[in-house]
Amino acid sequence: MHEKTISSKMLYTGRILGLEVQDVQLANGKKALREIVRHRGAVAVLARRPDGKFVLVRQFRKPVEREMLEVVAGNREAGEDPEVCARRELKEETGYSVRRLVPLGFTFPSPGYVDERIDLYYAETGPDAGGINPDEDEHLEVVLLDRNSIVEKIGRNEINDSKTLAAWTQFVTIVETGAAAQGTRGAS
Amino acid sequence: MHEKTISSKMLYTGRILGLEVQDVQLANGKKALREIVRHRGAVAVLARRPDGKFVLVRQFRKPVEREMLEVVAGNREAGEDPEVCARRELKEETGYSVRRLVPLGFTFPSPGYVDERIDLYYAETGPDAGGINPDEDEHLEVVLLDRNSIVEKIGRNEINDSKTLAAWTQFVTIVETGAAAQGTRGAS
Repeated sequence: MHEKTISSKMLYTGRILGLEVQDVQLANGKKALREIVRHRGAVAVLARRPDGKFVLVRQFRKPVEREMLEVVAGNREAGEDPEVCARRELKEETGYSVRRLVPLGFTFPSPGYVDERIDLYYAETGPDAGGINPDEDEHLEVVLLDRNSIVEKIGRNEINDSKTLAAWTQFVTIVETGAAAQGTRGAS
Repeated sequence: MHEKTISSKMLYTGRILGLEVQDVQLANGKKALREIVRHRGAVAVLARRPDGKFVLVRQFRKPVEREMLEVVAGNREAGEDPEVCARRELKEETGYSVRRLVPLGFTFPSPGYVDERIDLYYAETGPDAGGINPDEDEHLEVVLLDRNSIVEKIGRNEINDSKTLAAWTQFVTIVETGAAAQGTRGAS
């Protein structure tokens, strides 16, 4: 099923993404054009306080022109370990520190045209938040929700960000039910 | 929390996506650059046969250089209704016809830098597949899985495509538990 790259060209190299166009040869010998967004990868962190409240963030997302309710997330810095990135982003965006970090595998948000991989984590935090330190161009509001509220918001489609749904699914599958926990890092 | 567009420029307009760069003004008055991928939207369909087997597809995804196991999905044609698109894509990619189609809301795969919205559906199919008719540059393999196998593959991170995880979460939340079913189309 492999597709062989015949030629490729970077059309744009920007701040958070790049755009590449490739001519490829399919397994059946035919040729096709592939438009590929390049992204350096990100992490997403489903965080929970000792009192059981989940720590989410609400922010305006310009591409979709709306406020979104999402798990904490951020782009990896060059060469940054995803676990280090997860702890950093949680602290910067919400003020909470990580007491226990559980890897939940990864997800590809749009594998048809983006190479971004998002590493997923579940984090148990301390009880209290310190000061926050978001990026200059970020404006975030911390939202605390209990488990029932999250399930309700998923059912009502008010939580509709894909990495948030992916992290929740993995949390329920791996942490809550304990199913296949030993295999979560085996599929890379 | 709104961000006001000061200026915008389309840098690329291609086959499945475009690239736009915007200067925006944040709520606090500061200015920022936004790199935005434009996409016309897609659908994803979690399909199940009368015998309980789910109908997924395996395909090579060039951006991530690997084979992915995903729900049926495809880009909407210009002006195409998402339900029409869902029925068309299921037929083209797997040969199965839809007997009952249940909307599961939508997801934004990468709202930080892409405007794509994916409308999610659960489809009950007929028992038998007819001929398939994939796009010229698509090479797909149909994979039939029972419910336990899907949960196992999610737990092992072998299913890691975000729209597939989103569709599964919504299926479990809305169809299987029936929770909040009447609200699934209310959040747009």
